Amino acid sequence: MKIIQKSIETLRVLSAEIISAGKIGDTGTALSASTLLYTLFKDHYNFYGGDSYINRDRFVMAAGSASAVYYSLMNMFGFDISGSDLKNYAQFKTKTPYSPELDLTEGVDCTAGPLGQGVATSVGLAISQAFLAKKFNAQKFNIISSHTYCFVNEANLMSGESMEALSLAGTLNLNNLILLYNNTGTTNDGSLENINNEKVKRKFKAMGWKVITVYKGDNYLWDFIAIKRAKRSQKPTLIIFKTKAGQDSVLEGTYESHNKILQHKEIEKIKADYNFNGAFNISNEVKQYCMRTHRRLKVKYLQWERQVVLYKNTHPELAEQLNAFYDKPKISLNKILKSTMQETENMREFNNVILNQLSTIRPCIMGGSADNLYLTKARLNEKAFSKTNYRGRHIHFGSRNQAIGAVCNGISLYFGAPSYCSSTLLQSSNMLPSMRLSVQMNLPVLYIFTHDSVFSGNFWQSFLPVEQLAQLRAIPNFYVFRPKNNEELLACYSVIYKNESPSALVLSGENCYKETNDVKSKNIVTKETEQTEYDQAINGAYILSEDDKAEIIIFASGSEVDLAIEAKQILNKSRKKVCVVSVPSIELFEKQTDKYKNSVLKKDIKTRVAVEASNDKVWYKYIGFDGLLFNINTFGISGNSEEAKNHFNFNAKKLVSQIKAIKA
Amino acid sequence: MKIIQKSIETLRVLSAEIISAGKIGDTGTALSASTLLYTLFKDHYNFYGGDSYINRDRFVMAAGSASAVYYSLMNMFGFDISGSDLKNYAQFKTKTPYSPELDLTEGVDCTAGPLGQGVATSVGLAISQAFLAKKFNAQKFNIISSHTYCFVNEANLMSGESMEALSLAGTLNLNNLILLYNNTGTTNDGSLENINNEKVKRKFKAMGWKVITVYKGDNYLWDFIAIKRAKRSQKPTLIIFKTKAGQDSVLEGTYESHNKILQHKEIEKIKADYNFNGAFNISNEVKQYCMRTHRRLKVKYLQWERQVVLYKNTHPELAEQLNAFYDKPKISLNKILKSTMQETENMREFNNVILNQLSTIRPCIMGGSADNLYLTKARLNEKAFSKTNYRGRHIHFGSRNQAIGAVCNGISLYFGAPSYCSSTLLQSSNMLPSMRLSVQMNLPVLYIFTHDSVFSGNFWQSFLPVEQLAQLRAIPNFYVFRPKNNEELLACYSVIYKNESPSALVLSGENCYKETNDVKSKNIVTKETEQTEYDQAINGAYILSEDDKAEIIIFASGSEVDLAIEAKQILNKSRKKVCVVSVPSIELFEKQTDKYKNSVLKKDIKTRVAVEASNDKVWYKYIGFDGLLFNINTFGISGNSEEAKNHFNFNAKKLVSQIKAIKA
Repeated sequence: MKIIQKSIETLRVLSAEIISAGKIGDTGTALSASTLLYTLFKDHYNFYGGDSYINRDRFVMAAGSASAVYYSLMNMFGFDISGSDLKNYAQFKTKTPYSPELDLTEGVDCTAGPLGQGVATSVGLAISQAFLAKKFNAQKFNIISSHTYCFVNEANLMSGESMEALSLAGTLNLNNLILLYNNTGTTNDGSLENINNEKVKRKFKAMGWKVITVYKGDNYLWDFIAIKRAKRSQKPTLIIFKTKAGQDSVLEGTYESHNKILQHKEIEKIKADYNFNGAFNISNEVKQYCMRTHRRLKVKYLQWERQVVLYKNTHPELAEQLNAFYDKPKISLNKILKSTMQETENMREFNNVILNQLSTIRPCIMGGSADNLYLTKARLNEKAFSKTNYRGRHIHFGSRNQAIGAVCNGISLYFGAPSYCSSTLLQSSNMLPSMRLSVQMNLPVLYIFTHDSVFSGNFWQSFLPVEQLAQLRAIPNFYVFRPKNNEELLACYSVIYKNESPSALVLSGENCYKETNDVKSKNIVTKETEQTEYDQAINGAYILSEDDKAEIIIFASGSEVDLAIEAKQILNKSRKKVCVVSVPSIELFEKQTDKYKNSVLKKDIKTRVAVEASNDKVWYKYIGFDGLLFNINTFGISGNSEEAKNHFNFNAKKLVSQIKAIKA
Repeated sequence: MKIIQKSIETLRVLSAEIISAGKIGDTGTALSASTLLYTLFKDHYNFYGGDSYINRDRFVMAAGSASAVYYSLMNMFGFDISGSDLKNYAQFKTKTPYSPELDLTEGVDCTAGPLGQGVATSVGLAISQAFLAKKFNAQKFNIISSHTYCFVNEANLMSGESMEALSLAGTLNLNNLILLYNNTGTTNDGSLENINNEKVKRKFKAMGWKVITVYKGDNYLWDFIAIKRAKRSQKPTLIIFKTKAGQDSVLEGTYESHNKILQHKEIEKIKADYNFNGAFNISNEVKQYCMRTHRRLKVKYLQWERQVVLYKNTHPELAEQLNAFYDKPKISLNKILKSTMQETENMREFNNVILNQLSTIRPCIMGGSADNLYLTKARLNEKAFSKTNYRGRHIHFGSRNQAIGAVCNGISLYFGAPSYCSSTLLQSSNMLPSMRLSVQMNLPVLYIFTHDSVFSGNFWQSFLPVEQLAQLRAIPNFYVFRPKNNEELLACYSVIYKNESPSALVLSGENCYKETNDVKSKNIVTKETEQTEYDQAINGAYILSEDDKAEIIIFASGSEVDLAIEAKQILNKSRKKVCVVSVPSIELFEKQTDKYKNSVLKKDIKTRVAVEASNDKVWYKYIGFDGLLFNINTFGISGNSEEAKNHFNFNAKKLVSQIKAIKA
């Protein structure tokens, strides 16, 4: 036991030193959690083998600001993090940033992101694990038996997306999920008692969790037993480790330990107490001892490999399926679904057809909706994923719009494959933090939103979106698609399938302009080429209809393209020549060559117009400051789609009169 | 009791009828909650008197989609809602929209907004009530003794901002808050069991709530007793009413009742069972009976008025304070704080000085921060509001970034006065739904955000904002202020104080350009006038520095104004003439006269540039599509402010070279 104590002390000193060197980080959490995290890494966390080892455990450092202790552990347990990486903590061009990041640091399983995102993502990881285990484990062959560990502090558990996700995990009874809660009783702003005095144990039990409390979180043996019990639990398990913030330092027990840095002499004091020498020092004895774990896990890995060989012999069919599980065949959606496209009138219904088609092609696609299937209509045609059916791929997320995206992040992270979630466009505001993380981890999560404008029916302003398109398009490296009809929708999907970039698909609801005036833009064959809309929409923007020597150019997206076409027809009558550009995706268009972009933008046309039922100002980039932005700048109103259009004077006639006013 | 039963049946039929007429609405909830809501209105909810009656109860219809039953009740109990208003439910230009709205319908206490927003707002209402009661009640004079009622369904309780707010309510022990939970066990997507099977009673108890379960939620007497007990509770109280979705209709007990509309003959069936005639009919007997409540409440109100007269005699000092409590004196912040402004170097610290000054002037200002005071530094200098100190005006919100804005909405709603919350700019993404409601209810909530760019220090991409400015500016009728220094900050506050519009104030963190190069733009006196920056900043944008016959115009906000000035100095050396425009608030600028706007925009200048450490494309509105947008289009990196600037090549030299490239 002496060597264990020494290892833990080493970890604690190392954590304090690198926070101090980096001048940033949560000393309070790092020092208090040293024992429990050491125990996890030494005895429980099965990290050997990397990405190809599908049965490895996952670890999410949701309390990212205490990453110093995480990196120190990785260094001690033979991950690819050196002593100089540690010294470089939170510095420029570091491998060890303030908050851990997926692709930057080998061995890091997840970009934690802010507050509850890590917790919700770990629920997604656990869902995927449970699904995979159910699908591929066979008698005597538990080839998937891994766990997801998530480390949290007080702040992570207070945030809404955590609570949504934890409630979902309880409902689904994900017993492979273990939450390690470092309970110091302090937060950045003071004692926890005045900030959150709920009874955590009871709360989690009420949510269907098993709860284990370790009253001496600093005790290796108790920590060991607790995690061991958690791994055997038939429910998701919370372990509450009672610890002292900033343990063994002058800041011990204070809330300031979470945002103060220990001074050099204060660290020296700890070292003196521990009888330690040197700086950033791990004794050979400790090093050797930690590497035993590495060797143990290697043996475990080799055993698993042998088991998989036997599995292939015993269950050849399953093994074949497993082998093909992650395959991504090349497909042409246009060929597969062309006839359905023409038969399905409602875009949301056609969206569901495509989704189900894709899920047939790729068995690893999972997803679900936020308690509004009757609106979004996005549902895989199979029995839902539930605590009694881990084979299902449709998840009833419930009204959990804050967690839904982060859970999907976890699913895409685990499978390295697409996942999807659906809700109304208004609710997209709740998913912006997880979309950001989809991008940062480059996860192919597809966010499907319906009811995309103030013209979505009698919902009234609380439910009608206006600013959401602008907010989605603001996320760096995130693709937003707003197709005008089934053909463009299919084109969007073909891009989404091919690129596997995080994306939002924004569809109209019922009673939209799109659906009442759909006929108008049908059968329009564009001038220069005989390319179909499908062929062209994959460029993000394209000339839909163009007169010779056009003097007016109109950009539009989604339902408003028909309005632009209608305006063109009116303008044509008074001999104005017009070019209409359909823009299903601005981000996609921006990726095209300058030559193509210029051919569509036609900057020499003076009269420039953009039409969209949103308040996104991005259009000024294409129309210039003298351009006419025909849009919606305020919240919706009560009334049906037509009434709303009259109220806002959002119609071709008004558009034409405004265009003519520019010319005058 | 017979008349009571008849009244409830009337309410149920009326609700079904108006949902059916409007072709939208949650039949399942409306019909199941008829008894409990009738009981609340008949015997408990003290609604008489309107806004001036500060001791009236508040009612929040968080389950807004069931508003049909709410409007029906209002009609029955003598609010200003007529039978034709009911028939006009969810129609164009209605007084009774799908989701209830504050200013549209007399008697509606709160715009519920989507999902958990209503719940979180009711917590803010309860905080304000508790504060007011503690401050002004005196021995034998409980002049404030009102309650906040909030009506919720399954969906409202699942969402994250609800859970954050309910946890806060428990921590603060707000015993004036009563949550009426209509527990049908069904949601839009199916049976609750598969979507959320937590034990609600235990969960709320763990959060410090009292829980009362009414197993027969359809029984008037049990409902009556439950609400009565809740009013006497020493804790916040949840009443779980077990009810049947769509009670007494063909949809009874089904989840489809939440999104299906009853057919005419199905409603006729209910009426036949009830022995009812006519449509939209309230019998005289029922009407008369309901109006008894109105008379009872009037008597109660008059008693309260008499009590206040006695109070004035017995406690003249308190009465005087109460009288002045809502006063808004005219002030000149510039006069009061000019010297402090010059002495305080850090903008966040000066922000705190202003905040405390305002709180001295207006005793009704409350607010708090989201567990990051060490970053935002926004804290009123008094003991915190806690369960043992309802006199405090600083609230420790904890890491509850989803609820914080909605709670402040509740506070501003209750007091009709400013409130504020603070967090980092990254976290603003979690508050967009409540900001939207701040605008929709026109509540003067001030959202203070610090660490406003990727140059905020070694935090790494998970914590550094990029797209947040664009997302905030996208909210209709919401003001975003990003001052460059203390003087502009003070100007922003003077506008915020005067206008009382929902606003965000975005400040730099430490180690920002702002703070290292602050000196440069000091003492610049603008050319044409001798106006100070303070005088001009109140226009939202103004010419900060201008050469004669400028050929280049540079717009910039916040920390980047200094960069623009530096670029100008370099350009001046090669005899380029430049105009620099400081833009502390785009929205404010847009409100100015065309004449003023044109004088600042100077559209005849061909070379147009905007500089901002964000990815907001709104600047194209001022620079045109040929303009140079010098900005940040991707996530932050690890490293300090200077290193990040080098990495992104975000400096005056690069800016100048790009400007020169345009000219070539």
